[in-house]
Amino acid sequence: MSKSLGLEDVTARCCAPLSGPVMDEAEAADLAKVFKALSDPVRLRLLNLIASHEGGEACVCDLTGPFDLTAPTISHHLKVLRQAGLIEGERRGTWVYYRPIPAALTRLSGLFALPALTGAR
Amino acid sequence: MSKSLGLEDVTARCCAPLSGPVMDEAEAADLAKVFKALSDPVRLRLLNLIASHEGGEACVCDLTGPFDLTAPTISHHLKVLRQAGLIEGERRGTWVYYRPIPAALTRLSGLFALPALTGAR
Repeated sequence: MSKSLGLEDVTARCCAPLSGPVMDEAEAADLAKVFKALSDPVRLRLLNLIASHEGGEACVCDLTGPFDLTAPTISHHLKVLRQAGLIEGERRGTWVYYRPIPAALTRLSGLFALPALTGAR
Repeated sequence: MSKSLGLEDVTARCCAPLSGPVMDEAEAADLAKVFKALSDPVRLRLLNLIASHEGGEACVCDLTGPFDLTAPTISHHLKVLRQAGLIEGERRGTWVYYRPIPAALTRLSGLFALPALTGAR
């Protein structure tokens, strides 16, 4: 139970619907870190580019062009997304390829799903 | 088109799925503000308490008890959530009652829905 996989596990654990059970302080703190990772426009656009890329993954070489930022800055943002458990990277030859972690994103999707309120307005 | 409703409108506009069309810089910036509002554990717990409260709304008088924080601090966090278009408040008599804005939350839910990736892992 003490393996150090970090925020990917946390993301998987913490995302009952907001309309569901009361979130404890630890869950809220962990989830806040995920949203902190998402609270940057460049990281949101990177995640969007990765998730919408043909084949469901994007080479880091495809991710620098759309931004007026240096490669190290892009790498930093990718690292933050990775540490938040939102994406994973795999080195193949020269390049690292990134893809979203579907379990993390679908759990965030579930967090905001409010079945009890659907149709309330 | 220049009405000043603010982030509620933005939230409604900006949340095509991450796997969908490429997000422009303005959309990413606006959405980042919503996630900034969510990147605080107290605000997440407040939103959870409001969304899970019986009747789908919570009196501000029900929201201070669970926290070791002053009423003005709670009010500040509620204001941030309101400015992000995630909740709305209505004064009735002595108290303000807060409820989630379902359109905002379901659009965030849609943002993380990745149909193209479902089942990929």
